Amino acid sequence: MSTNDEGFKIAVEEARKSLREGGIPIGACLVSADGKIIGQGHNARIQRNSAILHGEMSALESAGRLPASAYRGATMYTTLSPCDMCSGACILYKVARVVLGENNTFLGGEDYLRQRGIEVINLNHPECKDMMTDFIAKHPDDWFEDIGEC
Amino acid sequence: MSTNDEGFKIAVEEARKSLREGGIPIGACLVSADGKIIGQGHNARIQRNSAILHGEMSALESAGRLPASAYRGATMYTTLSPCDMCSGACILYKVARVVLGENNTFLGGEDYLRQRGIEVINLNHPECKDMMTDFIAKHPDDWFEDIGEC
Repeated sequence: MSTNDEGFKIAVEEARKSLREGGIPIGACLVSADGKIIGQGHNARIQRNSAILHGEMSALESAGRLPASAYRGATMYTTLSPCDMCSGACILYKVARVVLGENNTFLGGEDYLRQRGIEVINLNHPECKDMMTDFIAKHPDDWFEDIGEC
Repeated sequence: MSTNDEGFKIAVEEARKSLREGGIPIGACLVSADGKIIGQGHNARIQRNSAILHGEMSALESAGRLPASAYRGATMYTTLSPCDMCSGACILYKVARVVLGENNTFLGGEDYLRQRGIEVINLNHPECKDMMTDFIAKHPDDWFEDIGEC
């Protein structure tokens, strides 16, 4: 798993797209065991007034209804360490691994994912860190609302 | 907390509504610390072709964007034990308690909710059990898809 993976590139492009829309720059992409892109999306709190459309949730939603077998061996690429909600969603659907861009600006449910048998790989990607660092500095209220913090 | 709570009555009514629509009969209602109904909804997998709109997620989404303080002391009423995704969402937003209708037909993330400091109360409600038992018998494929099982 590397920053050259198609799934990761799409996740980063989704984060950039959200930023261009005035939203929180977090993107995700769900890739099946055989390498097919089955879902992609970005955080839509600001764009769609949503409390649940984090990047990973948007990617799962864009994939539509799928049987459990479709998630078997799948990889969730995301530009940021997944929060408790998104970690729980990955556990529900039993994806095989979560590949994340960074966990410096936010550390989510990585330990719990590992406890539940999901591989977690951190790519330490500079652009992911820069987009979030800059967004948090400029829009702290939007960011803390997104992670349920005061 | 009892089956006479307004929040629980609304959750059950949402489950009935989903059933009438041909959907999975699970409903939820989010009630603030001061007793105000701030969100309600039902499972919409079938109705909206959704992988993420479980009952609790629909209730959170219907509440819209809220500051972290709005969830402080809040209760999530749900007709069924919350899955890992919905448990994670309750943890993200730090609701104070989850009041559930039953956990006979499905046991979700109750232990993890407790570990993360959220009170969990099971009302053992006969109608909630009956609705789910009947639905699972009639539509096993829809149900197992909803919980990511084969």
